[in-house]
Amino acid sequence: MEIDIREVKAEVEAAFARYEAALVNNDVATLEALFHDDPRTIRYGGGENLYGMDAIRAFRRARSPVGLERMLARTVITTYGQDFAVASTLFQRENAPGRIGRQQQSWVRFPEGWRVVAAHVSVIADDGAA
Amino acid sequence: MEIDIREVKAEVEAAFARYEAALVNNDVATLEALFHDDPRTIRYGGGENLYGMDAIRAFRRARSPVGLERMLARTVITTYGQDFAVASTLFQRENAPGRIGRQQQSWVRFPEGWRVVAAHVSVIADDGAA
Repeated sequence: MEIDIREVKAEVEAAFARYEAALVNNDVATLEALFHDDPRTIRYGGGENLYGMDAIRAFRRARSPVGLERMLARTVITTYGQDFAVASTLFQRENAPGRIGRQQQSWVRFPEGWRVVAAHVSVIADDGAA
Repeated sequence: MEIDIREVKAEVEAAFARYEAALVNNDVATLEALFHDDPRTIRYGGGENLYGMDAIRAFRRARSPVGLERMLARTVITTYGQDFAVASTLFQRENAPGRIGRQQQSWVRFPEGWRVVAAHVSVIADDGAA
Protein backbone atom coordinates (compact mmCIF):
# COMPACT_ATOMS: atom_id res chain seq x y z
CA MET A 1 0.00 0.00 0.00
CA GLU A 2 2.02 2.93 -1.28
CA ILE A 3 1.04 6.24 0.26
CA ASP A 4 1.10 9.56 -1.59
CA ILE A 5 2.22 8.41 -5.02
CA ARG A 6 3.01 11.73 -6.64
CA GLU A 7 0.82 11.37 -9.74
CA VAL A 8 -2.14 10.02 -7.79
CA LYS A 9 -1.93 12.80 -5.24
CA ALA A 10 -1.85 15.43 -8.00
CA GLU A 11 -5.05 13.99 -9.46
CA VAL A 12 -6.88 14.11 -6.15
CA GLU A 13 -5.60 17.60 -5.41
CA ALA A 14 -7.07 18.74 -8.71
CA ALA A 15 -10.41 17.07 -7.94
CA PHE A 16 -10.44 18.59 -4.47
CA ALA A 17 -9.73 22.07 -5.86
CA ARG A 18 -12.52 21.66 -8.39
CA TYR A 19 -14.91 20.66 -5.62
CA GLU A 20 -13.92 23.63 -3.46
CA ALA A 21 -14.44 26.11 -6.30
CA ALA A 22 -17.85 24.58 -7.00
CA LEU A 23 -18.79 24.77 -3.34
CA VAL A 24 -18.09 28.45 -2.77
CA ASN A 25 -19.82 29.29 -6.07
CA ASN A 26 -22.74 26.96 -5.33
CA ASP A 27 -22.14 25.21 -8.67
CA VAL A 28 -24.57 22.44 -7.85
CA ALA A 29 -24.05 20.50 -11.08
CA THR A 30 -20.33 20.12 -10.40
CA LEU A 31 -20.87 19.32 -6.73
CA GLU A 32 -23.25 16.55 -7.70
CA ALA A 33 -20.97 15.26 -10.43
CA LEU A 34 -18.09 14.88 -7.98
CA PHE A 35 -20.07 12.67 -5.59
CA HIS A 36 -20.45 9.00 -6.44
CA ASP A 37 -24.02 8.55 -7.69
CA ASP A 38 -24.97 5.61 -5.49
CA PRO A 39 -27.35 4.88 -2.60
CA ARG A 40 -24.30 3.97 -0.48
CA THR A 41 -22.79 7.45 -0.72
CA ILE A 42 -23.18 9.21 2.63
CA ARG A 43 -22.82 12.86 3.59
CA TYR A 44 -23.04 13.99 7.20
CA GLY A 45 -23.49 17.75 6.93
CA GLY A 46 -23.38 20.62 9.38
CA GLY A 47 -26.93 19.93 10.46
CA GLU A 48 -28.20 16.96 8.46
CA ASN A 49 -27.46 13.29 7.86
CA LEU A 50 -27.83 12.36 4.20
CA TYR A 51 -27.87 8.71 3.19
CA GLY A 52 -27.66 8.09 -0.54
CA MET A 53 -27.21 10.35 -3.54
CA ASP A 54 -30.92 11.15 -3.80
CA ALA A 55 -30.88 12.73 -0.34
CA ILE A 56 -27.62 14.54 -1.11
CA ARG A 57 -29.01 15.93 -4.37
CA ALA A 58 -32.20 17.14 -2.69
CA PHE A 59 -30.15 18.95 -0.05
CA ARG A 60 -27.83 20.60 -2.58
CA ARG A 61 -30.66 21.86 -4.73
CA ALA A 62 -32.48 23.43 -1.77
CA ARG A 63 -29.42 25.05 -0.24
CA SER A 64 -29.11 28.83 0.05
CA PRO A 65 -26.28 30.08 -2.17
CA VAL A 66 -25.53 32.92 0.28
CA GLY A 67 -22.46 33.06 2.51
CA LEU A 68 -20.65 29.96 1.25
CA GLU A 69 -17.30 31.75 0.84
CA ARG A 70 -14.71 30.29 3.21
CA MET A 71 -11.03 30.11 3.99
CA LEU A 72 -9.35 26.70 4.26
CA ALA A 73 -6.63 25.81 6.74
CA ARG A 74 -4.51 22.74 7.49
CA THR A 75 -5.72 20.92 4.38
CA VAL A 76 -4.20 17.43 4.12
CA ILE A 77 -4.78 15.14 1.15
CA THR A 78 -3.36 11.64 1.50
CA THR A 79 -3.59 8.92 -1.12
CA TYR A 80 -3.45 5.17 -0.44
CA GLY A 81 -2.47 3.09 -3.43
CA GLN A 82 -3.80 4.10 -6.84
CA ASP A 83 -7.50 4.36 -6.15
CA PHE A 84 -8.20 5.80 -2.75
CA ALA A 85 -7.67 9.08 -0.94
CA VAL A 86 -8.78 11.07 2.07
CA ALA A 87 -9.03 14.87 2.08
CA SER A 88 -9.29 16.66 5.42
CA THR A 89 -9.49 20.39 5.92
CA LEU A 90 -10.48 22.99 8.44
CA PHE A 91 -12.43 26.03 7.27
CA GLN A 92 -13.64 29.36 8.58
CA ARG A 93 -16.30 31.76 7.35
CA GLU A 94 -16.40 35.47 7.98
CA ASN A 95 -20.06 35.16 8.89
CA ALA A 96 -19.23 32.63 11.63
CA PRO A 97 -16.52 34.13 13.82
CA GLY A 98 -15.27 31.97 16.68
CA ARG A 99 -16.32 28.81 14.85
CA ILE A 100 -14.16 26.32 13.05
CA GLY A 101 -15.42 23.93 10.39
CA ARG A 102 -14.03 20.49 9.65
CA GLN A 103 -14.55 18.70 6.34
CA GLN A 104 -13.37 15.18 5.67
CA GLN A 105 -13.97 13.33 2.41
CA SER A 106 -13.15 9.85 1.16
CA TRP A 107 -12.38 9.77 -2.56
CA VAL A 108 -12.38 6.68 -4.77
CA ARG A 109 -11.20 6.37 -8.37
CA PHE A 110 -13.95 5.03 -10.65
CA PRO A 111 -13.79 4.55 -14.44
CA GLU A 112 -15.48 7.96 -14.76
CA GLY A 113 -12.94 9.64 -12.47
CA TRP A 114 -12.37 10.47 -8.81
CA ARG A 115 -15.57 10.68 -6.77
CA VAL A 116 -16.44 11.37 -3.14
CA VAL A 117 -18.03 8.29 -1.57
CA ALA A 118 -18.33 9.67 1.95
CA ALA A 119 -18.15 13.12 3.49
CA HIS A 120 -18.56 14.58 6.93
CA VAL A 121 -18.80 18.30 7.67
CA SER A 122 -19.16 19.76 11.16
CA VAL A 123 -18.57 23.02 12.97
CA ILE A 124 -17.30 23.47 16.51
CA ALA A 125 -16.18 26.33 18.73
CA ASP A 126 -12.71 27.57 17.82
CA ASP A 127 -10.96 27.45 21.17
CA GLY A 128 -7.51 27.57 19.70
CA ALA A 129 -7.13 23.80 19.89
CA ALA A 130 -7.35 23.56 16.11
CA MET B 1 -13.72 -1.07 -8.54
CA GLU B 2 -15.88 -3.77 -7.04
CA ILE B 3 -18.01 -2.57 -4.15
CA ASP B 4 -18.91 -4.68 -1.12
CA ILE B 5 -17.03 -7.87 -1.92
CA ARG B 6 -18.48 -10.21 0.65
CA GLU B 7 -15.23 -11.40 2.23
CA VAL B 8 -13.75 -7.92 2.37
CA LYS B 9 -16.88 -6.50 3.95
CA ALA B 10 -16.88 -9.21 6.61
CA GLU B 11 -13.30 -8.32 7.52
CA VAL B 12 -14.10 -4.65 7.94
CA GLU B 13 -17.26 -5.39 9.89
CA ALA B 14 -15.17 -7.42 12.32
CA ALA B 15 -12.61 -4.61 12.67
CA PHE B 16 -15.39 -2.07 13.18
CA ALA B 17 -17.01 -4.22 15.88
CA ARG B 18 -13.68 -4.59 17.61
CA TYR B 19 -13.19 -0.84 17.54
CA GLU B 20 -16.68 -0.19 18.93
CA ALA B 21 -16.19 -2.61 21.81
CA ALA B 22 -12.86 -0.98 22.62
CA LEU B 23 -14.42 2.48 22.52
CA VAL B 24 -17.24 1.89 24.97
CA ASN B 25 -14.83 0.07 27.30
CA ASN B 26 -12.13 2.73 26.91
CA ASP B 27 -9.67 0.01 25.86
CA VAL B 28 -7.06 2.54 24.80
CA ALA B 29 -4.49 -0.01 23.64
CA THR B 30 -6.92 -1.52 21.14
CA LEU B 31 -8.18 1.88 20.00
CA GLU B 32 -4.63 2.95 19.30
CA ALA B 33 -3.77 -0.32 17.59
CA LEU B 34 -6.67 0.10 15.16
CA PHE B 35 -5.54 3.52 13.97
CA HIS B 36 -2.75 3.72 11.40
CA ASP B 37 0.37 4.81 13.28
CA ASP B 38 1.38 7.65 10.98
CA PRO B 39 1.65 11.44 11.10
CA ARG B 40 -0.85 11.59 8.22
CA THR B 41 -3.62 9.92 10.24
CA ILE B 42 -6.23 12.52 11.18
CA ARG B 43 -9.04 12.45 13.70
CA TYR B 44 -11.55 15.28 13.96
CA GLY B 45 -13.27 14.64 17.29
CA GLY B 46 -16.32 16.05 19.03
CA GLY B 47 -14.34 19.06 20.22
CA GLU B 48 -10.77 18.70 18.95
CA ASN B 49 -8.82 18.43 15.71
CA LEU B 50 -6.06 15.86 15.95
CA TYR B 51 -3.40 15.72 13.24
CA GLY B 52 -1.13 12.70 13.43
CA MET B 53 -1.00 9.64 15.61
CA ASP B 54 0.96 11.38 18.36
CA ALA B 55 -1.88 13.87 18.88
CA ILE B 56 -4.47 11.08 18.70
CA ARG B 57 -2.60 9.00 21.28
CA ALA B 58 -2.27 11.95 23.67
CA PHE B 59 -6.01 12.58 23.44
CA ARG B 60 -6.96 8.94 24.03
CA ARG B 61 -4.74 8.60 27.06
CA ALA B 62 -6.15 11.73 28.70
CA ARG B 63 -9.79 10.94 27.99
CA SER B 64 -12.27 10.33 30.80
CA PRO B 65 -13.49 6.72 30.70
CA VAL B 66 -16.91 7.75 32.05
CA GLY B 67 -20.10 7.79 29.98
CA LEU B 68 -18.75 6.30 26.75
CA GLU B 69 -21.57 3.75 26.42
CA ARG B 70 -23.64 4.45 23.32
CA MET B 71 -26.24 3.04 20.96
CA LEU B 72 -25.47 2.89 17.24
CA ALA B 73 -27.99 3.52 14.48
CA ARG B 74 -27.97 3.47 10.68
CA THR B 75 -24.48 1.96 10.55
CA VAL B 76 -23.29 1.52 6.96
CA ILE B 77 -20.00 -0.14 6.06
CA THR B 78 -19.07 -0.05 2.38
CA THR B 79 -15.94 -1.54 0.87
CA TYR B 80 -14.28 -0.40 -2.37
CA GLY B 81 -12.06 -2.99 -3.95
CA GLN B 82 -9.90 -5.15 -1.69
CA ASP B 83 -8.18 -2.55 0.43
CA PHE B 84 -10.46 0.32 1.26
CA ALA B 85 -13.65 0.89 3.22
CA VAL B 86 -15.77 3.59 4.80
CA ALA B 87 -17.78 3.07 7.99
CA SER B 88 -20.48 5.58 8.88
CA THR B 89 -22.75 5.44 11.89
CA LEU B 90 -25.01 7.58 13.99
CA PHE B 91 -24.90 7.20 17.77
CA GLN B 92 -26.75 8.35 20.85
CA ARG B 93 -25.80 8.45 24.50
CA GLU B 94 -28.19 8.33 27.43
CA ASN B 95 -26.26 11.20 29.00
CA ALA B 96 -26.87 13.38 25.91
CA PRO B 97 -30.60 13.35 25.16
CA GLY B 98 -31.71 15.33 22.12
CA ARG B 99 -28.26 15.04 20.55
CA ILE B 100 -27.18 12.77 17.73
CA GLY B 101 -23.58 11.78 17.07
CA ARG B 102 -22.10 10.99 13.69
CA GLN B 103 -18.93 8.95 13.25
CA GLN B 104 -17.29 8.35 9.89
CA GLN B 105 -14.08 6.40 9.43
CA SER B 106 -11.90 5.55 6.44
CA TRP B 107 -10.27 2.14 6.74
CA VAL B 108 -7.29 0.90 4.72
CA ARG B 109 -5.84 -2.61 4.57
CA PHE B 110 -2.14 -2.64 5.51
CA PRO B 111 0.13 -5.68 5.83
CA GLU B 112 -0.59 -5.61 9.57
CA GLY B 113 -4.37 -5.50 9.05
CA TRP B 114 -7.20 -3.02 8.62
CA ARG B 115 -6.50 0.39 10.13
CA VAL B 116 -8.37 3.69 10.40
CA VAL B 117 -6.52 6.40 8.46
CA ALA B 118 -9.08 9.15 8.99
CA ALA B 119 -11.99 9.68 11.35
CA HIS B 120 -14.48 12.41 12.03
CA VAL B 121 -16.85 12.49 14.99
CA SER B 122 -19.38 15.25 15.61
CA VAL B 123 -22.58 15.80 17.54
CA ILE B 124 -25.58 17.86 16.43
CA ALA B 125 -29.11 18.49 17.65
CA ASP B 126 -31.41 15.58 16.92
CA ASP B 127 -34.24 17.32 15.12
CA GLY B 128 -35.60 14.16 13.61
CA ALA B 129 -33.83 14.76 10.30
CA ALA B 130 -31.46 11.90 11.04
